[in-house]
Amino acid sequence: MRKLSSLLLLMVLSICWSYAQQAKYVFYFIGDGMGVNQVQGTEIYQAELEGKMGISPLLFTQFPYSTVAITNSATNRVTDSAAAGTALATGRKTKNNAIGVLKDQETPISSVAVWAKNKGCRVGIATSVTVNHATPGAFYAHAAKRTLYHEIGKDLYKTGFDFYAGSDFRDATDKNNPTTENLYEMASKNGYTIARGYKDYLKQSKKADKMLLLQTEEASKREFVAIPYAIDRKKGDMTLQDITRSAINFLSKDSSKGFFLMVEGGRIDWACHSNDAATTFHEVIDFDNAIKIAYEFYSQHSDETLIVVTADHETGGFVLGTGTYDLNLQVLKNQKVSENGFTRIVNEMRAKTNNQVSWEAIRQALKDNFSFWDKIELTTEQEARLKTVYEKSLMHQEMKLEKSEYAQDEPIASEAKRIINEIALVGWTSGGHSAGYVPVFAIGAGADLFQGRIDNTEIPTKIAQAAGYPIDF
Amino acid sequence: MRKLSSLLLLMVLSICWSYAQQAKYVFYFIGDGMGVNQVQGTEIYQAELEGKMGISPLLFTQFPYSTVAITNSATNRVTDSAAAGTALATGRKTKNNAIGVLKDQETPISSVAVWAKNKGCRVGIATSVTVNHATPGAFYAHAAKRTLYHEIGKDLYKTGFDFYAGSDFRDATDKNNPTTENLYEMASKNGYTIARGYKDYLKQSKKADKMLLLQTEEASKREFVAIPYAIDRKKGDMTLQDITRSAINFLSKDSSKGFFLMVEGGRIDWACHSNDAATTFHEVIDFDNAIKIAYEFYSQHSDETLIVVTADHETGGFVLGTGTYDLNLQVLKNQKVSENGFTRIVNEMRAKTNNQVSWEAIRQALKDNFSFWDKIELTTEQEARLKTVYEKSLMHQEMKLEKSEYAQDEPIASEAKRIINEIALVGWTSGGHSAGYVPVFAIGAGADLFQGRIDNTEIPTKIAQAAGYPIDF
Repeated sequence: MRKLSSLLLLMVLSICWSYAQQAKYVFYFIGDGMGVNQVQGTEIYQAELEGKMGISPLLFTQFPYSTVAITNSATNRVTDSAAAGTALATGRKTKNNAIGVLKDQETPISSVAVWAKNKGCRVGIATSVTVNHATPGAFYAHAAKRTLYHEIGKDLYKTGFDFYAGSDFRDATDKNNPTTENLYEMASKNGYTIARGYKDYLKQSKKADKMLLLQTEEASKREFVAIPYAIDRKKGDMTLQDITRSAINFLSKDSSKGFFLMVEGGRIDWACHSNDAATTFHEVIDFDNAIKIAYEFYSQHSDETLIVVTADHETGGFVLGTGTYDLNLQVLKNQKVSENGFTRIVNEMRAKTNNQVSWEAIRQALKDNFSFWDKIELTTEQEARLKTVYEKSLMHQEMKLEKSEYAQDEPIASEAKRIINEIALVGWTSGGHSAGYVPVFAIGAGADLFQGRIDNTEIPTKIAQAAGYPIDF
Repeated sequence: MRKLSSLLLLMVLSICWSYAQQAKYVFYFIGDGMGVNQVQGTEIYQAELEGKMGISPLLFTQFPYSTVAITNSATNRVTDSAAAGTALATGRKTKNNAIGVLKDQETPISSVAVWAKNKGCRVGIATSVTVNHATPGAFYAHAAKRTLYHEIGKDLYKTGFDFYAGSDFRDATDKNNPTTENLYEMASKNGYTIARGYKDYLKQSKKADKMLLLQTEEASKREFVAIPYAIDRKKGDMTLQDITRSAINFLSKDSSKGFFLMVEGGRIDWACHSNDAATTFHEVIDFDNAIKIAYEFYSQHSDETLIVVTADHETGGFVLGTGTYDLNLQVLKNQKVSENGFTRIVNEMRAKTNNQVSWEAIRQALKDNFSFWDKIELTTEQEARLKTVYEKSLMHQEMKLEKSEYAQDEPIASEAKRIINEIALVGWTSGGHSAGYVPVFAIGAGADLFQGRIDNTEIPTKIAQAAGYPIDF
């Protein structure tokens, strides 16, 4: 009897399966620097804010398929974002620093986005950092070095996908030939409409043939290298949700075609390079919020949509626990700005006082932005550390910034961040990347391909398999 | 045509499936303290020894199903081994410190091993540490506190599984009533044969009704709390492979019954509490070697065997990378003993010289056991650190040991280990546990249940589902 019912069940399943289509719509979300602890930490942080034990889950961790992936590059046991982006884009390992080329730094290799285009799909590449940064670049560019931003930007037009989004361009002007056409000027010639911010996208998208969505010029004036951290966001700032919503809207224009969309949460990495836990958790939540937009689309097209979420590498050597058998992540809710945001606040104080910032003013700023001496009691030792840093680097002093990969921060901002991290009981072992596994989560058509521990190079080929893209190697 | 072939394929599959049995034989491997980086690190270490990039995989990471699990206890965001063992055994969260009881520390809860026994299966519980330690204890005992070793030992007989193995008993004698029967004496009365070491097992197993396998008395005299670390192993020492082989042999006696076997790699955790990377990697490899024994059995009974491999928590906050974009794990091959093993060597030197150990002798011992000043060049700063520690703690000094969770070590052993870890470019943030995900790998009958991120409490219930055990709650 059991055999018979199993047989019938599987006959029904097989009929359903034969009708199930390939993944016509593919979402590929990459959390830059989002190791397993970044994900798990965010879920514990959310649970702590709700006053409950365990986790309060993100959306993407609840996807039915999950595994872990290996991330080494062709040359380094600890990858950088260029080689990792290339692996996730092209299915090939390359040298650290190289974008969309083999480790000879010459031979171009094509990405899953190109394979999708070759199948006739519409393609979008989006990020919260500059549109010609390493991870997005790996999907459309070929460059010996990730720092060849201008050349990578030119490849963006050459490859000619339907939709690109990011904060702005880095090196829009060719440093070697500053009088030649810059990357903005190249847009219209290549058939691209530039929209500045979400509202502008809504205005311009209908008439646009191809779209380049950047943040507003006002936001770029504040900081052009990325859209603002979620924790520092101001009203009107473009978000990764806005970008994802715009991308889906634009790529869905021709419903006869499927689409491939890569969205990078690019600043998780930066927050981790700064070893800034509160900012990291806010970035992961923000990334999940962007995934929720894709999930809405999935809900309406579940038979033919695949969502894959992964990361390029772990950043910071982030550890949840420093010895005692507990965490105190909820304390991080008192941090109102990123380390970098607090640096900006101190800079304004410096500017207003001609570098004569008083300890009382700093103390007040720390109270306002970290709740020190308010909701968070400091030990005598912690207060002394802040005072010492103040005296050394701020009292009647010019700026001497503490440098991490993507930021130069006031030592007082760094010390405040270190103290709140200690109180939260989290540890960081590195200002760079680490070789830990990255998580992989998948839902939808072909998601069952993501089982068993994999190498990062398998992810684009599995996507291609799920979507029926012709793999080009 | 595609539809038709799919249909035919699935009809065939459905017929195969209807013949596939439940998991008659279940292996449940628990690597204590084996977080994702302990696994990934071991595979990179192996690759480095082979002079290749990427990883040289362990067996268990190649299982077709893998995911990650959450580990918090009912009371702590960072679990201890008692609560984690209880979750993995019973499917219920409890208070840190509690064994096989709810968080009220009173209400007993039964384990998947008991459910297996209730279904008529033979049951074995094995570990590389004491047989009444937290993780094995959670499968057969009920105790408010994990340190109630004697009571936990008594529960071992009360629950009466077919096979137990470990290094020895902790608190074999009841400290409060030292004249009452000790745990060894209770064995025969409860129908157990005690075998001492693998050879003795082979001699005694045929006639034995129930088996308690401990290491030889000679090995226990050296250290009774665990079988020796793989890195410190001497010829004749019982291994986790020996234990696993014995367990399978013993549980297979009645082939009409299935079996459930839990094997703990208990010392991975201890090596991580000591932040000793070389020793950790050797323990993980040793654990994998034990899994290979189970895999041999699986190969002969693949339709009806399930192997699940997981961990109870991460220990040490272990990070693969400290800032530069590389690792240098191969240097660890020069470490010939554990930190604890080197302590023993220094102790012997102390005993022989009446605490007058010379710097030259220590230098030679460091050369012999860590290849310092030989294959590993030290910087002036590193050499100075060793010399300072020697002068402070060894030169004409009594012992002052450096304490970690399970060991008290000579400061010179600790400093040597720290230096070789630094050269290997690995970091540790904690002497305790952390709240990171643990890996889960599965193969065989019902292994497909292990998909999507799970909570550790789901693992025993999924095993029960795969094996058709009646879940008792």
